[in-house]
Order: sequence, then structure tokens, then C-alpha cells
Amino acid sequence: MIETITNYLEEKKYIQIKELLENMRVQDLAELLDNLTDDNHKIKLFRLFPKAMGAEVFSYAQPQLQEFIVQALTDKEISTMIEAMYFDDTVDFLEEMPANVVEKVLKNSTKETRLQINKLLSYDDDTAGSIMTTEFLDLKSDTTVEEAFQRIRKIGREVETINILYVTNPSKKLVGELTIRDLLLAEENTKVESIMKDSTLFITTSTDNEKVVQIFNKYDIIALPVVDAENLLVGIVTVDDVMRVMEEETTEDFHKMSAITPTNVPYLKTPAYKLASNRVIWLTCLMVSAIFTGMLITFYETAFAVLPTLVACLPMLMGTGGNCGTQASTLIIRGLAINEIKFKDYFKIWLKEVQVSLLIALGLCALNFVIVFIQYKELVLSIAVSSSLFFVIIIANCLGFSLPMLAKKLKLDPALMASPILTTILDCAVILIYFNIAKLLLGV
Amino acid sequence: MIETITNYLEEKKYIQIKELLENMRVQDLAELLDNLTDDNHKIKLFRLFPKAMGAEVFSYAQPQLQEFIVQALTDKEISTMIEAMYFDDTVDFLEEMPANVVEKVLKNSTKETRLQINKLLSYDDDTAGSIMTTEFLDLKSDTTVEEAFQRIRKIGREVETINILYVTNPSKKLVGELTIRDLLLAEENTKVESIMKDSTLFITTSTDNEKVVQIFNKYDIIALPVVDAENLLVGIVTVDDVMRVMEEETTEDFHKMSAITPTNVPYLKTPAYKLASNRVIWLTCLMVSAIFTGMLITFYETAFAVLPTLVACLPMLMGTGGNCGTQASTLIIRGLAINEIKFKDYFKIWLKEVQVSLLIALGLCALNFVIVFIQYKELVLSIAVSSSLFFVIIIANCLGFSLPMLAKKLKLDPALMASPILTTILDCAVILIYFNIAKLLLGV
Repeated sequence: MIETITNYLEEKKYIQIKELLENMRVQDLAELLDNLTDDNHKIKLFRLFPKAMGAEVFSYAQPQLQEFIVQALTDKEISTMIEAMYFDDTVDFLEEMPANVVEKVLKNSTKETRLQINKLLSYDDDTAGSIMTTEFLDLKSDTTVEEAFQRIRKIGREVETINILYVTNPSKKLVGELTIRDLLLAEENTKVESIMKDSTLFITTSTDNEKVVQIFNKYDIIALPVVDAENLLVGIVTVDDVMRVMEEETTEDFHKMSAITPTNVPYLKTPAYKLASNRVIWLTCLMVSAIFTGMLITFYETAFAVLPTLVACLPMLMGTGGNCGTQASTLIIRGLAINEIKFKDYFKIWLKEVQVSLLIALGLCALNFVIVFIQYKELVLSIAVSSSLFFVIIIANCLGFSLPMLAKKLKLDPALMASPILTTILDCAVILIYFNIAKLLLGV
Repeated sequence: MIETITNYLEEKKYIQIKELLENMRVQDLAELLDNLTDDNHKIKLFRLFPKAMGAEVFSYAQPQLQEFIVQALTDKEISTMIEAMYFDDTVDFLEEMPANVVEKVLKNSTKETRLQINKLLSYDDDTAGSIMTTEFLDLKSDTTVEEAFQRIRKIGREVETINILYVTNPSKKLVGELTIRDLLLAEENTKVESIMKDSTLFITTSTDNEKVVQIFNKYDIIALPVVDAENLLVGIVTVDDVMRVMEEETTEDFHKMSAITPTNVPYLKTPAYKLASNRVIWLTCLMVSAIFTGMLITFYETAFAVLPTLVACLPMLMGTGGNCGTQASTLIIRGLAINEIKFKDYFKIWLKEVQVSLLIALGLCALNFVIVFIQYKELVLSIAVSSSLFFVIIIANCLGFSLPMLAKKLKLDPALMASPILTTILDCAVILIYFNIAKLLLGV
């Protein structure tokens, strides 16, 4: 495909290109544009798109490509494109651009567009305000079904969805909603207020995106109205944007849980120094604390001077502690993220985790005792290791579920209380428990 | 709310209950039903729901509650409810039920329903067939817009969505699609084939759910047609089901990456013995391998007999190795899951990770050398530790990105190659590298 287009561009076969483009989706065209090797070809191809298609392809392009396109277009071309784009897409794009590009775009927008963009840009990145679209179809409550259809036919192409329509009173307050299906099944002279449902489900511009995702997931809806502080309808959030947010938030959680500073730039597009800097901060903190944790071991030199094999069981204890903690914390972090678990469940979880960790601890300790005894034929060692393992598992599970819940309570991100931090804390616990039990049993 | 309903039920104030229910959403009613303490109340309340509402509430109920309701209802009530439910919801519910419940339900279904259910039940759990709905609105290509509207008015209430309509030829092959918006903006006597778009985007009943999620995410769509092996249109997948699948698949990935056997039963609904058994399998495997890894340490007893502080730096090396490996593997596992990274990118990633790990290794090793030297005032130790750290970081990063990609290539789940397994492998590498370097430098 890329080759065909490249050849056509070189041979100036523009008609053939236009034919090829007709059956393609804008998302694929954005990818194709990104994959062309010659920068001149990119701009040539972009200029061949019809106005509306160009605006859509641009919305789906990667930030680097968007920047390149804006730099290459004339003022007039930018102006046409921006007016054809949805405001929310323009805002998403501007948020990733350097100041000079933002300036160039705003300079070439109409006053109305500029106002809308600035308003949307002012919302916090993690809130519904930043993902809502202001181009929706609202109806007055005394509109008839017939008038509603006229309005849809008139401005239906310009709004993001007509599948759900929102009804407002004269002061623009949200009073109800109805689907296109409700309209189609109603009589022509019925007023929309008599067929609409109360809008009991709505969010504000400052609702957290995580909450928005949870509402969409729970209620199986495709759009949600957004109101401002005065309860006036200011926008709608559609399911496609919510799915994107859901994917981004999950990626962020994965990154945080692995001690990576989260980013939404695709891996392959991130330069190596940036990848390194996203990882090195946490690595450094964790390494430094591990050095100090390790210092504790020096207090027990006499113990492993008497029984050097003591050291051989240290990795197993640390590993198992880390794994137990990771399991418990992951279950809780994910449960909190999808709203399956709330802070008020703390006691129930506590009860459950105590049972779970006792079950696991008893099973693993018995097995551990047998293997360690067969392997090293040292009774004291086997007892020291398996009894330490018992306490380590209990502590690991308790910390694993408590720390994320505590973080939630303190309005911190529970995802930070995952494996890497937990493991570092648990290593310290392992050293203290294990060597103290060993000292006690060895009598040194 | 629960209290109010309980009181009303006890005082038999059924009219007040019905009024209360009117403005509630079915998802909330399912939750409310689940939270009632008295089983008799549950059934009493359920019987108060109008037919369609009851079927919907039932679809959203937890499996345990569904089983209880089916056991309590009469044959006639079950029959009415099943006929009012969407086939895909019935199938989702039956998949979680014990055999006697499935039998009771099928016995009380019409022949037509039973056929449809059995067909849907036969699709693999991870494929589009299992999440598609067979109740959709299809149009013939020579239907006019007016006829299409008539058809929507006639059967629009029974299908899951009318926002996207699919067009088939006389042999039921999928030939195109159009939105309700396209219909509304067209002339009454236009034929749908002249306003429809080619259906270039479709899936088969055996398409993997992960792939389905990727398509929805990429193309911002709200429904996708499903065809069978003969390219006949057999169903559609709607965005609400895809969001549920997306959430479930992500939860599974989180669990697998933390060495937990994945389950979709909510944490608080899972009994302790089940939670323990989901976690203990991997814990046991990892513990046993860690015991054997630890054995390696006994070969180096002489080294830490000469310099006991050697042992103090072991946790730091293991921790940092584990963290580096976790970071790299998480980036790759998540990238593969959202299709941002493909196996063919292996070489590009290799190049990137080598740069990243060199940058990280140089930074951390320098810092490490300084801290360890200040702390222990042992030059040999400091050199041994920081040079080991260098190799450990490089190896951890390489294993971290390679193992998930290798798993993908071998058609295994990349999510299994995460922190717990990696850490166990890396611990082994740390012991070998560290003690061999130490032996060399100490000359023992």
C-alpha cells in the first residue's frame, strides 16, 4: 500500500490516489501518512484529502506528524482544517504541541473557535471537561417530534452523535434525554418532554475521568451529558473517547505498578533517553533504600558465620514475600480501580486476607520445611526458614492489601503501592524476622 | 434505600415500591436486590418488576443471585423472563450456571430460543461469537429509506441497537452498512444500497476478543458486524459488550502479571479458599525454584567467609535486577496487548533497550559505588557490587523485553512473563554474577 501510494505520488497520478483513498478509513490513512518515508510525500498526500477527511485524518495522527503538518501548511489551510475539526479533537492535539504551534493555530482560528478552544483547554487533564465535546444536539422540552427531526436533518452532520439527544429548559438546564429510537417510535406532533426520560445520570466538567469510565462501564451507555457548576448543559462525553481514556488509564496503572513514570507516548516513538529517565527515578530511590536495608544484615554476621547456609535461603524468603505482597496488592489495586472494592470494605478484606494468608502460609511452610530439610539436612535451619516464611507470608499479605487501601484513603494513587515499593519494604521485614529467629534458635 | 424498600416490603406497600422503582436504572436495581438481606424479600421485589425490567435486572445480577432467582421462580415465570431477555445475556448467564439450572432454563424455553442459545453456547469463550448478539436490524439492499423506517418502527424495540444498520444481499451476505443518521438525511424513496458504505470492517465468530477490542479502539465505532465461515451476517458486537470484555481482559492481565490464576468473580464475592488456591499454585512453583536457586549460594561460602559484608549487598542487587526486569517487561506486555508493539519490531526494541539499559546502568552504578564505598569503606566490595550491578541491569532489561516477545511468538500469553517469573530467573543470574566477580576480586 505504502509503495503504491509512493509510486503514484512520484508519477503524479492523483486521480488514482483519490480512488484508492475513497474506501479507506481515516485511522488507517493517519497510519499510512505516518509511514511514508518522504516528508514531501506526506504533505502532498495530505493536501489530496477532501476537507472533512483531512480534518479527521489529522485528528488521528500522532503528535509528531501533527506538528509537522501544521508547520508545513499555509495559514489559510490551517484555518480551513481547524474549522472542520471537532473542538475536542483540536484541544487534544493542541495539548501535545509546543507553544509556537499553538500560537500558529489560534492565530488562524475564528474568534468563536478560539473562545471554545480556550475554554476546553482550561479544564484539568484528568477530568470530564477535557474529554467532552461541545458539539452535541440539544432540544428544547416543548419541541415536537417533527421539529426535532427537522433540527437533526439540519445540523445532524455537524454534531458528534445523534443517537442520544439531550433536552434542556429555556435557561439551558438539563431536564431529560431521549434516544433517536424514542423519536422514531413516537407520533410526529408529540412534544419531546412527554417521551423523554429524566436525565438522572450526568457528570460535571470536573468529574474525574476514572469515575466517568466506571459510569460508562456500569450503565452500558454510549453518551453522558456534562453540566457546569450551575447545572447548565455544556457538553457530552461519548463512548469512543471513554474507551480511549480507559485504555490510557490502564496503561498508566500498569506503568505506575512497575515503578515507571507513566507516559502516553507509544514505546516505539519514545527516544531512549526519555525511556531511561522515566524509569531511573524510581530505580534510584529503590536502590538506595535497598542499600540501607542490606546494612541490617551486617548486624547478623555472627549468625551466618555459625551457619553459612542461612544465607542460601534468603533469596527464597525475599522472593516469596515479594510474590505474596504483589498478589494481594494487585487484587486490591485493580479492585479499587474498577470500583469493585471501596474503602469501607476494609474490615471484610482484612478478614478474608487473614484466612487466605493462613491457608497459603500453612501449605507453603510445610512444603518448605520438607524440601529445605532434605536439601541441607539441618533441623535448626529448616525450622528457622519455615517459621520465618510463615510470618513473612502473613505480613506480606497484610501490607499488600493495606498499603493500596491506605493510599486510596489519603487520596494518593493506590497503583503506586505495588510490587516494587512493597518488595523493598518486605525485604527489610524478611531480614529482621529471619535472622532474629535464626539467632534465637542458634543461641548466638 | 435498602431500608426503605425492606420496610415497604414488610408493610406490603407495593404501590409505593413501584413508584420508587420507576426512576431507577436496572443496574442499580440488580445491586439493590443483591444487597437485600432477606431472601424472601429478594423474590418478592423481583416479582414486582414489570416483565421487561425484570429480564434486564436479571441480566445484570451476579451469578449467585441469578441462580437463586431461577431456583425460586416457577416454570412459567422463567419462560416469560427468558423470552424477554436478549440471547447474548441469556448465554452469558447460562455459562456461569450449574447443570441443573441450565436444564431448568432450557426446558422452559421455546424451541427457537433453545436453538439460538445452543448455537451461541457453542462458540469459544474468548471469541466474538460468545459476545455477539443475534438480535440486530438488517436491511435488504433494495429496501427504500421509507421502508427502512417502517421496519425500524416495527421491530426497533426488539433489537439491541438501531444506530448502525447492516445491509445484506438476498443470500444474507453482508454488503454494506449505514447509520441512522444517513437514513435521516436521505430522501424517502432512495434505496439503501445507494447511501450505504461498504462494510470493509467486519469480524468472524472465531475472531479473538482481544482483536475485537483493538478494532473498536482503533476505529472509534459503536458496533461491528459478525459473519460466519460462509460470510453470512450472523450477529453484531456492540460497544457496551466490548467495554466489558476490555475490562475483564485487563483484569486478567493484571492477575497473570502478578502470578494469580485469573478469575472474573469480584474479589469480595470469592471465598477465601478459592482466593488462596488461585494464588498458591504459582507461589509454590516460584518458592521451589527459589530454594534451588539459593543452593547456588552455598558454592560461594568461602567468599563471604572472607568478606561477610558481601551478603549485605545481595538484597539490593536482587531488588534492582527485579525492578529493571519488571519495568521492561511491563512496557512490552502492555504494548503487545494494545497492539502498539508487534513481533517484527524486535530488532528496534533491542536497539532501544540496549541504549536505555546502558544509560540506566551507568547512572546507577556510579551512584551505587559512591554510597557503598562511603558506607562500608571497602574498595573491593564497592567495585564488586557496582560492576555486578552493571551486568545485572543489562541482563534484566534484555530478559525483561525478550521473554514476553518470545512468548508472543510461541503463541503463549506474554503476561505470564512478568515480574514474578522474571525475578526468580534474575535472582539466579545475580548470584552467579555477583559471587563470581567477588571471588575473582578477592582471589579466593
